[in-house]
Amino acid sequence: MGKLNGKAVVAQGGGPTAVINQSLIGVILEARKFDCIENVYGAMHGVSGIIKEDFMDLTQATTHNLEMVANTPSSGMLSTRDKPDGEYCQKIFEVLKVHNVRYFYYIGGNDSADTCRIVNENAQKAGYDLRVVHVPKTIDNDLLVTDHCPGFGSAGLFVSQAFAGINLDNRSIPGIYIGVVMGRNAGFLTATSIFAKKYPDDGPHLVYVPEKAFDKTKFLSDVERIYRENDRCVIAVSEGICDAKGEPMIASLMENQEKDAHGNIQLSGTGALGDALAGLIKSELKIKRVRTDTFGYLQRSYLSTVSAVDANEAREVGEKAVQFSVWHDIDGSVAIRRTGDYSVEYFLTPLSTVARNTKSMPDEFIDTENSTITEAFKSYARPLVGTLPTYDRIWAPKVEKILNK
Amino acid sequence: MGKLNGKAVVAQGGGPTAVINQSLIGVILEARKFDCIENVYGAMHGVSGIIKEDFMDLTQATTHNLEMVANTPSSGMLSTRDKPDGEYCQKIFEVLKVHNVRYFYYIGGNDSADTCRIVNENAQKAGYDLRVVHVPKTIDNDLLVTDHCPGFGSAGLFVSQAFAGINLDNRSIPGIYIGVVMGRNAGFLTATSIFAKKYPDDGPHLVYVPEKAFDKTKFLSDVERIYRENDRCVIAVSEGICDAKGEPMIASLMENQEKDAHGNIQLSGTGALGDALAGLIKSELKIKRVRTDTFGYLQRSYLSTVSAVDANEAREVGEKAVQFSVWHDIDGSVAIRRTGDYSVEYFLTPLSTVARNTKSMPDEFIDTENSTITEAFKSYARPLVGTLPTYDRIWAPKVEKILNK
Repeated sequence: MGKLNGKAVVAQGGGPTAVINQSLIGVILEARKFDCIENVYGAMHGVSGIIKEDFMDLTQATTHNLEMVANTPSSGMLSTRDKPDGEYCQKIFEVLKVHNVRYFYYIGGNDSADTCRIVNENAQKAGYDLRVVHVPKTIDNDLLVTDHCPGFGSAGLFVSQAFAGINLDNRSIPGIYIGVVMGRNAGFLTATSIFAKKYPDDGPHLVYVPEKAFDKTKFLSDVERIYRENDRCVIAVSEGICDAKGEPMIASLMENQEKDAHGNIQLSGTGALGDALAGLIKSELKIKRVRTDTFGYLQRSYLSTVSAVDANEAREVGEKAVQFSVWHDIDGSVAIRRTGDYSVEYFLTPLSTVARNTKSMPDEFIDTENSTITEAFKSYARPLVGTLPTYDRIWAPKVEKILNK
Repeated sequence: MGKLNGKAVVAQGGGPTAVINQSLIGVILEARKFDCIENVYGAMHGVSGIIKEDFMDLTQATTHNLEMVANTPSSGMLSTRDKPDGEYCQKIFEVLKVHNVRYFYYIGGNDSADTCRIVNENAQKAGYDLRVVHVPKTIDNDLLVTDHCPGFGSAGLFVSQAFAGINLDNRSIPGIYIGVVMGRNAGFLTATSIFAKKYPDDGPHLVYVPEKAFDKTKFLSDVERIYRENDRCVIAVSEGICDAKGEPMIASLMENQEKDAHGNIQLSGTGALGDALAGLIKSELKIKRVRTDTFGYLQRSYLSTVSAVDANEAREVGEKAVQFSVWHDIDGSVAIRRTGDYSVEYFLTPLSTVARNTKSMPDEFIDTENSTITEAFKSYARPLVGTLPTYDRIWAPKVEKILNK
C-alpha cells in the first residue's frame, strides 16, 4: 500500500442525490486515515473547480461537520455539467501536477465516469502517475456493470411515498392523476411507484417506462379500461417515454429543446409532458377531472426521505474507492454485486465499462400488456427502496340502508 | 350532558391534508365514549355519502385500525366537492332523521363550514334537533376566526423541506428555479418556504404571494437583481398570484378554465403557471437554465412529513367537536386561540363566522419591496411547522492557488 505519496482530490459531478454526500464523506474520512495521502482536497463544482484551482482542504474539516454533511442531500462540494475534452484535461493535469495530487475520486453517473476515463487516459499519456476512481451515483439507476446505483433507493422511496399519498388522495376525490417521474431513458425510478400499491385496487394502475414504445392509442384504451373499472386512475409516467421511432414524447411538445453540454435534452424542470398527456385524456376520453404533477427536483433533493440501505451503500462505495486505490493501486469504477437476499460486495470495474453508455430495465421487469410492473422488479428493488411508513384504511361494517334500499 | 340521544355521523369534505384523519379519529374515539351516542357512523365521500346512505358503522372498528388511519394522510372516509343547496339538504335530513342521527361532525375548510351552516339552518327550519359542528382543516390556512388551521403546519413542513432540498440542489448546479405552491388566494403555505433559508445566501430569494398584486416588471427586475448577486435564484410562487386587477395570473395562460361546484377555478394539477413564468424569464432576461416544479398534490398527501404540533392539534379539534356538542349542547366551528409561545386553547365559534369567506395574510407578514417574507410571519408559523431535519455545509479552509494566482 501507499505506493504513491501525494494529495487526494474528491469531486462531485452531475445531478445530486439524497445520499451523494455519504459517498463524499466516505472518501474523505477513509482518505484521512492514510499516511501516503498528505491532504484531502475537495474541488468545488466538480472538474470545473479543478481547472480553476477552487479547492477546500478537507483535511481541516471537523468530523462532526462531515457527518452532518453526509446526511445532507445534494452535492456538498457542489456540482457541474462540464464534460472535459482533451484540452480541458490538459488543464486538469497541470493543476493536479503542480499540487502533487496522486488520487482523484469523482462521484457521479455515466457522464462523470466518462470524465474519469478521459482524465485517466490523459494522465497515462502524460506519464503522470495518478489513481482515478469513479464512485457511482444516480437516481436513474442506469449505470452499466453495477447491480444498482447509490441514490436510486432513496429516490425510489420518495417516488413510492409520493404515489402512496397520491393514491390515497385520488381515492378520496376520484379522477385521473398522472405523475411524471425522472429517470431519463431508464424506467427504474418510475417502476418504484409500484410499491405504493398496497391494496389490489390501489394505484398506480398504469405505469409507462421509456423501455417500451409509448403508443397513444394503447394509452387511451388503458386509461379508459381502468377508469371504467375503478372510477379513477393513477398513472406513473417516465419523463423519457418515447414513441415507436424512439423520439421522446416530450420533444414534439416543446418549442425549444434545450440541450446540456453532453447533448442531453431537457426532460426535467417543466410540466409540459404531464400537461400534454392530461390534455390528451380530456379531449379524447371526455373525462373532466384530470390532474398531473411533475415530481421534478424534489425526487433527488427532498429533505428527510432516505433509504437506510441506500445511505449505507453510498458511504461504502466512497470508502471502497479509497481502499482500492491505496491498497491495490488500481483505477476503475466501484460497482456493487448482489450476493444474497439481501447482501452485496463491492468490486472495481474498468472505467471504460461504465463510461458513456447506460443500462435499461430488462423485459422481465415490465408487464407491457397490462402497462404495469412485474413481481421480478419488486424483488429486485424492494431491498434498495426499503419499507414505506405504515398507513391503513378503515375497516368497519357497512350500515344497512333504509331509504335507498 | 347527553341531552340528545341518537347516532353521530362524521364526514370529511374538500381537499385532504396529512393530518385530517387525526381529526376523524379524534371525533370517533371521543364519540364512542358517550352513552348518549348509540353508534358513530362514517359517511363515505362526505355529504354525498349521507344522501346515498353510504355509512360505515365506526363503532365496530378496532382502536388499532383507527390509530393506524390517524397516521395516514388523505381522507380516510373519502371526500367530496359537493356543495349542498336547499334541496340537497332536504335529502340529508330525511336520511339523518330516519337513522336517528343527532350529532353531525363535518371536517373541512370554509366550503365545508358553509355546508354545515346550511345543514344546521335547514335542521332548525325543519324542527329537527341536530348538533352540527364543523372541524377545521385546510393546508391553505385561510379560515376566519381561528389562529391557524390543522393541516397547514404539516403542509408547511413539506414546503420547507422541499425548498431546503431545492436550495441545496440549485446551489450545486446554479440557475433559476421556480417552485409553485398551493394555497389558493392565501399566501401562508408559500410563505413557509422561508424556513428553508438557513444561511444568508440560501433560497428562496424571492417569494410571491396572492395578497400582493403580481407585477411582471417588478418580478423580472427582482430576478435579475438576485441572479446578478448570487449567480442563481430560487423563487417561491403561490398558485393563486393575481395581477393588479385581481385577475389570477394562471387565468390568462390556460385555454379552458375548469371550475368546480363551488365556482373555484383549477389552480392545481397543472404545470402551466410555472412554465409560463419560466418562459418569461428565458425570453426577457435571456437566462438559459430556468427550471420549474409545481409541488402539486404531494404537498397535502406525501407520506411521512407531519408536524407533531399539527398532528396533535388536529386530533384535539376532533375531540373538542364532540365535547362541545355533548357537554355544552351547542353548534359551531372549532377554532384555535393562541395563548402563549407556544400554547393554545380551543373554542367554538358560530358557523356563520367561518363559512364561505376566507382570510389572507396580514401586511406585516409580507416584505413587498424585497419580495420576501418577514420575521413576524416566521414567529407566527414556526411553532406550527416545527423543526426541519438538520443539514449542513462543509466548513474547511480554501487552498491557496498556484497556477491561477
